[in-house]
Amino acid sequence: MSNLLTPAETANWLKERNNFLIVTHRRPDGDTLGCAGALANGLRSTGKTAYVMYNPEATPRYARFVESYIAPDDYSPDLIIAVDTASISLFPKNAESPAGKIALCIDHHGSNTMYAENTCLNSERASCGEVIYDVLMELSGNISRDIAECLYVALSTDTGCFSFGNTTSNTLYVASLLIDAGAPNKELNKTLFRTKSHGRISIEGMLTSGIEYSFDDRVAIAAITIKMLEESQADEDDLDDIAALPGSIEGVCIGIIIRELSSTSDCKISVRTRAPYDAQKICAHFGGGGHKLAAGSMINKTVDEIKAELHKVLETVFI
Amino acid sequence: MSNLLTPAETANWLKERNNFLIVTHRRPDGDTLGCAGALANGLRSTGKTAYVMYNPEATPRYARFVESYIAPDDYSPDLIIAVDTASISLFPKNAESPAGKIALCIDHHGSNTMYAENTCLNSERASCGEVIYDVLMELSGNISRDIAECLYVALSTDTGCFSFGNTTSNTLYVASLLIDAGAPNKELNKTLFRTKSHGRISIEGMLTSGIEYSFDDRVAIAAITIKMLEESQADEDDLDDIAALPGSIEGVCIGIIIRELSSTSDCKISVRTRAPYDAQKICAHFGGGGHKLAAGSMINKTVDEIKAELHKVLETVFI
Repeated sequence: MSNLLTPAETANWLKERNNFLIVTHRRPDGDTLGCAGALANGLRSTGKTAYVMYNPEATPRYARFVESYIAPDDYSPDLIIAVDTASISLFPKNAESPAGKIALCIDHHGSNTMYAENTCLNSERASCGEVIYDVLMELSGNISRDIAECLYVALSTDTGCFSFGNTTSNTLYVASLLIDAGAPNKELNKTLFRTKSHGRISIEGMLTSGIEYSFDDRVAIAAITIKMLEESQADEDDLDDIAALPGSIEGVCIGIIIRELSSTSDCKISVRTRAPYDAQKICAHFGGGGHKLAAGSMINKTVDEIKAELHKVLETVFI
Repeated sequence: MSNLLTPAETANWLKERNNFLIVTHRRPDGDTLGCAGALANGLRSTGKTAYVMYNPEATPRYARFVESYIAPDDYSPDLIIAVDTASISLFPKNAESPAGKIALCIDHHGSNTMYAENTCLNSERASCGEVIYDVLMELSGNISRDIAECLYVALSTDTGCFSFGNTTSNTLYVASLLIDAGAPNKELNKTLFRTKSHGRISIEGMLTSGIEYSFDDRVAIAAITIKMLEESQADEDDLDDIAALPGSIEGVCIGIIIRELSSTSDCKISVRTRAPYDAQKICAHFGGGGHKLAAGSMINKTVDEIKAELHKVLETVFI
């Protein structure tokens, strides 16, 4: 079992040690990358050696700041720290070797499997960035402009610019302190939340034009076909969180995206529901799984076949 | 000239008086309505009589809280207070009579014309709600759950859920205190920022499908025709801030919406630019005006004629 540390104990643990490598989770997002950048910077500012493990999977453009902390190939760390990573299965492929010997994990996921020797966890925080903030304040009592930028990216991306249901008063309070410390929130928000790529705009236009409503407009189903992806030139980044779109329409209780993965009728459905409707139950019919309000399944059928089958499944929900 | 009051002086001014009527600006938004509701509630909680003037123009659904403060027809106030209203020209039609005798104006617009006898102005605040917060803390030192809800609507709507460039550390700090006081941010954000109407989804789909890029994708032009409005069943509420859409596309410096107003070739263009491009100059060509980054013009031509003319004007910008 992991040794649980408070932010103050974590700061003391860090003060007594040196030569750190910080690992992010796979498919890195703004929270894990912002935490890694902020922690590396904070450790260096107290005279420590700290690097971030390079994750060869796509790092979003907005998190380029992490590149200045990437470990050289010959770096041999004494201790490995994981940030925002709930379980070993979430480590990137090139971190499989260190995964078994994590000295410290700093996280905010209630589902953390306690795989690290020491764990600093606060599951009431919307972002891991808020936990890192607490640790860094204990470590040096000071947040530099660079750290503020990293942590603002962490907090804002994990909360959809403070609009998601996970946002707490602490998130907004820490964000206000980060702006005071120099986080360029105006520029970051523009990049992170107020700019859409050509591919995204194009695929959203096609997708929304093709939404089919049923069951008194309580169900909205849209398909993303290979042809649409080719025409829109949308890439994986452009499809981020697009499954939430049909469910964001007024009055819709069940929003479904059918994504065509190959021309040989491989598809994936993503189902988002509002309570009391159960996304998991709908996907279980197709052999898939997930959570009550968000679930998915792979299905070896065509888009039209899936629509017909979904209609039958949904009839059992609404009758 | 108006007598300038600090929030503390404003609170004292209110304490010494009674029988207030609070007036909002025309086409009321979340900030003016949230301020009116919060101020009426705060004044009542200190034993005063305070009502809000009913604005017959559409009040957004999310601001229904203001209805519990609407003045009865026979209410005869001693003093009229305007909130979030920079000039007399912004008063609604049914407030033309009181407009000339405003005892107090509480506002955050740097452009305030000082039309009121007394003015409490802080132009560094992103929302008028932040100024009202300061006044209410001086008045009673306490923010109730109902006031917190009103003010959260004010702060969040005026800053696009804290994403606009006007958002400051004070906005986030006050918002965190409002959540502590019970503002249901999760539910409010869902309604205000994470739900789109059928009409909005539909018109966005049509609009984005028809965007035309030119000048190396630095210009994006889209039309909203009467036919599109009929097919999408989008109303004026659904078109709120839609002019910002083409300009929000990555790399686009000049985003233009051409809106067809009647079948007899009445159109309106809305131009949004990024610096250094000047929206006002583009619109001046058509006899319109506005600001450097956002301007508009009425044009008595067809959509296609306007596109052709725009192309010529834009050539002078890019050559």
